[in-house]
Amino acid sequence: MKYLDSHVLRPILQSELQLRRVVPESASHVAQSLVETSTRGVDSHGINLFPYYVSAIEGGRINPTPRFTWAARKPSVAVLNADHGFGHHAGSTAMDAAVEMASQTGIGAVSVRESTHFGAAAYFALQASRRGYLAFAFTNADALVRVHDGRTAFFGTNPICFCAPMDGEDPFCLDMATSQVSWNKIVNKRDAGELLPIGWACDQEGESTIEPGRAAMLEPIGEYKGYGLGMMVEILCAVLAGGPLGRDLLPMYGSPLNEQRAISHFFVAINIVDFVDAKNFTEQMTELARRIRGLRPRGKSPVMISGDPEKHNYRKRQTQGIPIEDAKYAQFLQVSAEFKKAAL
Amino acid sequence: MKYLDSHVLRPILQSELQLRRVVPESASHVAQSLVETSTRGVDSHGINLFPYYVSAIEGGRINPTPRFTWAARKPSVAVLNADHGFGHHAGSTAMDAAVEMASQTGIGAVSVRESTHFGAAAYFALQASRRGYLAFAFTNADALVRVHDGRTAFFGTNPICFCAPMDGEDPFCLDMATSQVSWNKIVNKRDAGELLPIGWACDQEGESTIEPGRAAMLEPIGEYKGYGLGMMVEILCAVLAGGPLGRDLLPMYGSPLNEQRAISHFFVAINIVDFVDAKNFTEQMTELARRIRGLRPRGKSPVMISGDPEKHNYRKRQTQGIPIEDAKYAQFLQVSAEFKKAAL
Repeated sequence: MKYLDSHVLRPILQSELQLRRVVPESASHVAQSLVETSTRGVDSHGINLFPYYVSAIEGGRINPTPRFTWAARKPSVAVLNADHGFGHHAGSTAMDAAVEMASQTGIGAVSVRESTHFGAAAYFALQASRRGYLAFAFTNADALVRVHDGRTAFFGTNPICFCAPMDGEDPFCLDMATSQVSWNKIVNKRDAGELLPIGWACDQEGESTIEPGRAAMLEPIGEYKGYGLGMMVEILCAVLAGGPLGRDLLPMYGSPLNEQRAISHFFVAINIVDFVDAKNFTEQMTELARRIRGLRPRGKSPVMISGDPEKHNYRKRQTQGIPIEDAKYAQFLQVSAEFKKAAL
Repeated sequence: MKYLDSHVLRPILQSELQLRRVVPESASHVAQSLVETSTRGVDSHGINLFPYYVSAIEGGRINPTPRFTWAARKPSVAVLNADHGFGHHAGSTAMDAAVEMASQTGIGAVSVRESTHFGAAAYFALQASRRGYLAFAFTNADALVRVHDGRTAFFGTNPICFCAPMDGEDPFCLDMATSQVSWNKIVNKRDAGELLPIGWACDQEGESTIEPGRAAMLEPIGEYKGYGLGMMVEILCAVLAGGPLGRDLLPMYGSPLNEQRAISHFFVAINIVDFVDAKNFTEQMTELARRIRGLRPRGKSPVMISGDPEKHNYRKRQTQGIPIEDAKYAQFLQVSAEFKKAAL
């Protein structure tokens, strides 16, 4: 395991992307999203994705020089065609537009079509909540989660992200797949030679399995509920954007990198002060967090609210660096020897 | 078990409410919501609630003659003060306003404060989706769901409802508590003398229990995920409306009926045609439903989408009537002998 200094790493990521013809604004959002996400401890959606992104640019899947176009605009909604550019850039552009509309009309929503993997949904919703807005970010993804009462994966992990501003600390941040766990956790158990807890995964016949080697699909949270939430996200993203369904999306890995995926996203921003006095909102959020964090815990760790584990990680990794597996670090060095400069 | 004819029942419910000074528009929404919800098979939120509502009017908790006031208005958002009137009427008024704003600007959102129990969230979202809109309905509720890693209930079952129009059939309808099950299911197991499945409930110390008699709280779906969704709903409802938190709400049952509860709701309507061609949306929804319903099932029943079980119930109960337990039917007859006319 190596540790990388996030402050040194960010500009290297950006310049390596720009060296590969990625426009500066895309490169900046990708670098910022990956480093922030890893520093928050969400290793599945942080810098570990970088080697994939480099391959996807080189293969032609991700357009390094996208031309974003607005397909429809009303006072509070818009549709952005991302031209297969980085989802990080498209999503951030969309969320900015949602915030701008919300500042005028109270709420704004933007649908994004023909996009690519956008990294962590929290990147966008945090961006809006740090400016004082309630914010949602959604994306569809390739089929990986078993349909309720069926034997087939149809929806992706279709995440729901919701953020709300807090006083004197980073926003409340819920960023969750609608499956019990991410696929990464199955892979980690397999690599560690451990069995899976009941309820995480099922085999290719749709039967529950605790053997990571037989796992072929993920289980939704709360049975029909997580499955329904996955379909809700699919409707808000793919159906509203007129984009392909998750079931028809190329898988992220193992598919030809010269083929595009056309992922769809959906973003909402809500202007709090059009509903309630800002001070009233802030005080109630503070009170809510204070009371919950003071509840009697089940174990030794205090009760937390969504986003607290990431805030703890952020403080730690800001100084200790971002951990990276040796094999992944070797992939970084294959991309560029510059990354040695970030090693602690 | 008795069976009541929904068509005969609805006007009796309405006139019995009006006899108790409930304004006609409130009475109409309550009667319509209860009958529609029961006919859809959701017995926990249908006509079974009627005797409670009568007590709550007589006790003073629910205001039969509310004066709704709009506290804030922007082109796409508004805040409605429900004056402790029936949540069914307040919610329907709020959803109508959200649809009206969405028709002008693409999206509309309404926060409702100082309301009462609003019955089934689906009543409002279905109303908007039948008019061609995507719709969300949320409400907070008194503390009943254990916080993740804690030993205390802080949030209510805080439901999420999302509906989307479909061609030639009632909308897609997800209406789910963010807990594994509703409290009713615990009560039903207790009454049947059965043990609970693991993961439904915990005792007053916050430890998992399978004994219905020891159950004191419900478990959230997907552990920290359902807990986070519950807090999301709390923020969208109580915090955005400046209303009391679920933890501070009087419980629905067992609290003095002369005390008001001040429940908060939140509604969103999205105008689909401002994003995508209506025909494109409809065709993709039809295709999505067709493909999922045709997937290989795990058991003998076909794979369904959210709202399908309710559609099956609706067809059946339209002709066979709404089932009602003898003890509950006796409560109806105590309210009025008129209900005999609805018995099949």
